[in-house]
Amino acid sequence: MQERIRGVLSPVVTPFQRDLSPDRERFAAHCQWLLAQGVSGLAIFGTTSEANSLSVAERISLFDGLLEDGIPAARLMPGTGCCALSDSVELTRHAVSAGAAGVLMLPPFYYKGVSEEGVFRNYAEIVERVHDPRLRIYLYHIPQVSQVPITIPLIQRLRAAYPGAIAGIKDSSGDPANLRALLDAFAGTDFDVFPGSELLLLEGLRHGGVGCITATGNVNPGPIAALCRDWRGADADRQQANLDATRRVLQSFPMVPAVKATIAHYSDDDAWSRVRPPLVELDAGQRTQLVSQLDALGFAMPGIAMAA
Amino acid sequence: MQERIRGVLSPVVTPFQRDLSPDRERFAAHCQWLLAQGVSGLAIFGTTSEANSLSVAERISLFDGLLEDGIPAARLMPGTGCCALSDSVELTRHAVSAGAAGVLMLPPFYYKGVSEEGVFRNYAEIVERVHDPRLRIYLYHIPQVSQVPITIPLIQRLRAAYPGAIAGIKDSSGDPANLRALLDAFAGTDFDVFPGSELLLLEGLRHGGVGCITATGNVNPGPIAALCRDWRGADADRQQANLDATRRVLQSFPMVPAVKATIAHYSDDDAWSRVRPPLVELDAGQRTQLVSQLDALGFAMPGIAMAA
Repeated sequence: MQERIRGVLSPVVTPFQRDLSPDRERFAAHCQWLLAQGVSGLAIFGTTSEANSLSVAERISLFDGLLEDGIPAARLMPGTGCCALSDSVELTRHAVSAGAAGVLMLPPFYYKGVSEEGVFRNYAEIVERVHDPRLRIYLYHIPQVSQVPITIPLIQRLRAAYPGAIAGIKDSSGDPANLRALLDAFAGTDFDVFPGSELLLLEGLRHGGVGCITATGNVNPGPIAALCRDWRGADADRQQANLDATRRVLQSFPMVPAVKATIAHYSDDDAWSRVRPPLVELDAGQRTQLVSQLDALGFAMPGIAMAA
Repeated sequence: MQERIRGVLSPVVTPFQRDLSPDRERFAAHCQWLLAQGVSGLAIFGTTSEANSLSVAERISLFDGLLEDGIPAARLMPGTGCCALSDSVELTRHAVSAGAAGVLMLPPFYYKGVSEEGVFRNYAEIVERVHDPRLRIYLYHIPQVSQVPITIPLIQRLRAAYPGAIAGIKDSSGDPANLRALLDAFAGTDFDVFPGSELLLLEGLRHGGVGCITATGNVNPGPIAALCRDWRGADADRQQANLDATRRVLQSFPMVPAVKATIAHYSDDDAWSRVRPPLVELDAGQRTQLVSQLDALGFAMPGIAMAA
């Protein structure tokens, strides 16, 4: 078995061409840059990636493209949780066969008010159908978007049934109390808890968390990875405060367009600003504000490739 | 151009085999039964159909199967609105090329709090890409599930841009005030308004509505279609009250499993009770309650094929 992936993972934004088809070259280049900045892995196909705005075929093609371009599968944690069981199984099988470090899995998110039993059955069917000892599922708790929470009793039930496959969780609730409840509930086990924002990175690490998976890991990966490495150091609180300042700027705008606008600006490559509907790119005024606030913090994306 | 489809449409439930793959034979047989009961059309692949629990390939295969089994495309209004623009375009193109009466289109429903501009762009991209004068989009307003409302200003903007393609709406809000606002806003136009429940059938018809698209149209199609035909008659209020009584029984249980349990019971074919996760079939106690309440109303499914 390969080692567990831990540390900082970037939920990689998906660049689009003018016709809104996925842009394989920019995607691979951004992934290479992120790894060079010191992140542990790439949580491609998450909320920040507009993954649910991509077809299954588009996701598989982008995934395979990264492998062809030399990104190691062991650094990838693709999102594979869809509304349709059949889609989740197809994407998960593909990722596991290729040797991905794990898969980040949303619950089916169309129906609302579904029972714990129904969500359990969804994950159980996927584990049974994929049926591979290499499968490591990281549950994706983002109730403000999916509207379907991943509760502690659900996790306990899944781990009792599939101890090898249910490897961890990304907690994107942003709620420190929920993060602490997860860390307490699974302390001393091999269930890995990743906060979904670097705002809770240090807090998480100090109580048993294993890193974070964060949208701003697309633009500020080096400093986030540095704190994750050096969190026992005397400088940790100051580092956390610096991360927080950058994060607060980004999250005062719609997050996905803001992350893309940041990359577009600092790489001088406007193609990066494109999003698929129903998202809308930042307007010129928002972008100016965003950049001036980031500049004021001394923000930089060192070594980012500049548009030709 | 083919005539507009109006009247009662059944959002056909999708039967599953033991391994949860779609059951093409039972699907076609149920569609034939519904048409024989007098409904105008079949709104396959809606919320009641567990459409978002199906892959794009599964939907296309079921759709093509119906055509092969002799269901006229002109009686079909498949759901084609997905989270991914690419999926919505593929499904819509397929339906339009085959000659479907129209498509029922959810907005992309993963992201929450999206702008009207973003939802507009989603539909606009689909119209532009499908680029077919036969395209008739029926917008699907079901905010309690999709969390993304279809507002009157959005409809007006879409109709101004694409007057031919934006043909109507299914209003599944269940809110009589919203239904009246839609009927008033588009009175005297060719924008067709279908309430999403027969509870509002007569109310709708009396104020310019064109029928309804309703989950219980799977089990009670004859009486619903009869009221839609005879709504100007002296007996209409009594007919509506009878429809309401049946509807109220069904909707006191989780709707999709209740509709499937009803078909399973009255056709003596337990295979019909299967649902895909995250839905869960009714338990034995719920099913007994449901059937005894329906029996008390003299409910029947005349001519339904019984399991061999």
